[in-house]
Amino acid sequence: MKINIERIISDLEILNAFNSTPENGCTRFSFTIEDTRAKEYLMGEMKAIGMEVWFDGVGNLHGLLKGNGENKKIVMSGSHIDTVTNGGKYDGNLGVIGALEVARVLSKSEVKRYHDYQVSIFIEEEGPHFGTNLIGSKAFCKNFSTAQSRKIKDSEGNSMYEVMKMARYNPDNIDTISFEPSKYKAMLELHIEQGRVLDLENKSIGIVKGIVGLKWFKIIIKGESNHAGATPMKYRLDPVVEGCKLISEIPNIVKSMDDNSMVATVGKIAVFPNQTNIISKFIEFTIDLRGIDEENLLTVVDIIESQLDELKERGFYCEIEQIAEAKGVKSNSNILDIIEESIKIREYSYTKLYSGANHDTSILGEYIPSAMIFVPSINGRSHCKEEFTKKIDIKVGCQVLCDTIYKLVKE
Amino acid sequence: MKINIERIISDLEILNAFNSTPENGCTRFSFTIEDTRAKEYLMGEMKAIGMEVWFDGVGNLHGLLKGNGENKKIVMSGSHIDTVTNGGKYDGNLGVIGALEVARVLSKSEVKRYHDYQVSIFIEEEGPHFGTNLIGSKAFCKNFSTAQSRKIKDSEGNSMYEVMKMARYNPDNIDTISFEPSKYKAMLELHIEQGRVLDLENKSIGIVKGIVGLKWFKIIIKGESNHAGATPMKYRLDPVVEGCKLISEIPNIVKSMDDNSMVATVGKIAVFPNQTNIISKFIEFTIDLRGIDEENLLTVVDIIESQLDELKERGFYCEIEQIAEAKGVKSNSNILDIIEESIKIREYSYTKLYSGANHDTSILGEYIPSAMIFVPSINGRSHCKEEFTKKIDIKVGCQVLCDTIYKLVKE
Repeated sequence: MKINIERIISDLEILNAFNSTPENGCTRFSFTIEDTRAKEYLMGEMKAIGMEVWFDGVGNLHGLLKGNGENKKIVMSGSHIDTVTNGGKYDGNLGVIGALEVARVLSKSEVKRYHDYQVSIFIEEEGPHFGTNLIGSKAFCKNFSTAQSRKIKDSEGNSMYEVMKMARYNPDNIDTISFEPSKYKAMLELHIEQGRVLDLENKSIGIVKGIVGLKWFKIIIKGESNHAGATPMKYRLDPVVEGCKLISEIPNIVKSMDDNSMVATVGKIAVFPNQTNIISKFIEFTIDLRGIDEENLLTVVDIIESQLDELKERGFYCEIEQIAEAKGVKSNSNILDIIEESIKIREYSYTKLYSGANHDTSILGEYIPSAMIFVPSINGRSHCKEEFTKKIDIKVGCQVLCDTIYKLVKE
Repeated sequence: MKINIERIISDLEILNAFNSTPENGCTRFSFTIEDTRAKEYLMGEMKAIGMEVWFDGVGNLHGLLKGNGENKKIVMSGSHIDTVTNGGKYDGNLGVIGALEVARVLSKSEVKRYHDYQVSIFIEEEGPHFGTNLIGSKAFCKNFSTAQSRKIKDSEGNSMYEVMKMARYNPDNIDTISFEPSKYKAMLELHIEQGRVLDLENKSIGIVKGIVGLKWFKIIIKGESNHAGATPMKYRLDPVVEGCKLISEIPNIVKSMDDNSMVATVGKIAVFPNQTNIISKFIEFTIDLRGIDEENLLTVVDIIESQLDELKERGFYCEIEQIAEAKGVKSNSNILDIIEESIKIREYSYTKLYSGANHDTSILGEYIPSAMIFVPSINGRSHCKEEFTKKIDIKVGCQVLCDTIYKLVKE
């Protein structure tokens, strides 16, 4: 069961040609002419190998290669072909082309398939088109409604409902989607890492143990604003000193958890009045906290809150507010074992890691046993025209996807 | 030799009435109608007690009460009557009215004066009028020229040169000012503290040991910007974590110097790109560092630079740039002794401190043996209509000024 790397590279180039910014990365929003043409190409390729092809109520494109088992289920693989503005040609696309290539290999093989194999291409994973991400996978799992499609709008003020109508989809069908998780045996998504771990560690494959959960917080620490010259150190209640102390300790708090899925980032800071010669009135900053284990995330929050309590006792006013949250999804351990076994047989280099970014599998994985396979992103670049994955790594990634799906489908 | 507190309070109210924002604090810029009228009042008061009165080339108003000594010098006292926009009625004004009251007391006294006593009222100490501070004292000491008066402009675009002409001063005379430091025996300035030390420590008088020097720095630390989710902690080069660590350590560095004139403040911070889910590319912040001892200031800078060097070794790009500087001025120890002796005789409460803000004495003190006397600012408020000093503290401050000048003038 060998995949054809030349066909995969060619497919990636073809998809990349359906692009509204051909001279500046790849831009392809769902329901645009580029999207329609790309899907026509994919439909043609799926039909050519005997797949049953259909659009669901939100416009996700699916192709089914039937199995023959009596109690057969569906093994699913896929991703998305929408991009950010001026994005790259691998993000999402590779997972779709990889899944299609597996369908080709399976369709040509003489091996019997017990289970069905479904290739799925989800709409609007990225978010910039309507300011909302993961729409296709959410709608597939009944977590997105026709009513919601009327509320979200593109940059020209057209609702997703209107945009779908203009592209000859029927958005009223979003509410008619039916989803029975028990019909699915597995979901496999091949994706570029979009981080630097595989590139730095020189590994061809990342076995994704899970997609980490996320909690965003906004913290405010207020002290006493005073003249920087006329206020001796001992009479200060400087929120910048204490806020910065906490910010600088956060990495140590996270490391002390001994959970390498965890990361924490302070990326946004404001001080007021933000003047060189004035002790600030307050500092405000965000914390982006991620990890696979909800309990560990809550422990870190507890530690941060107890440090804020100490500041309160010293006269500071402190506030912590959760401003965003996403649940973590652990990969299915049986699927992970099959992936690892497939890699070992071919002696590819690999490591196990967590995904810090969200993918369609973040949604599907709540309902269906799932796992992801990562291939390296050179320098971790993504969402830009510099996004790049070497041909050899694409080959290895698609082969592992193929071997894994083969094992899942055959029995 | 007793001062008359009622006359002082009355004078402060009279000055406060020459005010372009009578319903919102006190606003009085030099060369305005309010300034002219205030000076006419002060001139009248000085002439009434036999003082010789004149304007110097930049518009500083002086009054001289002659002494009779053969090798007499000049003992000077004074301050400024210009204010910030919507300022208070004590900043500067108290030092002028206090010096005038001392002249009244000396003129009525039968005690022989060996030395001359000069009351000086300096223009444009504050800065907002032309964006430059301490102009009067600088020009008095030959550190400000007619050419400079042509360059600085008010908010309506008129140069100081033009504004002086309109107010019937001759700005060409700035360059003709003559200054012989050796003629002066002492300069004494009474001023409100503009900080909270005296109020917090419940003292009537602050003996100002010196006006601290100031160094402002801009620091940039650059690291590697990356996705907050996809970059494990061990692969990060996060400039925010390191910048905040340094910021939080600065107070400890300053305290370790064991020099209570020293203060350091980080009041301005910027991070880029300032997004919740992105590890920052760089952090930029200012340090406002002050202290009486130049060598101690430089030691702190050395320690900060060595911490930046350590960051460079770890792969960060670091830059430190000095963006402003002002020299510190130590008070004359003989004058300080006389002040302390005067206070002890009357059993007033006092402490010794440094001035973190600049005053006319910052300039004059470079040339003339000088010292300042502080009285409490309630809650440290200044440069606003809430600026307030209790009558009892004004009385004590003026009395100490009077006693000190009496001792300096008589022999």
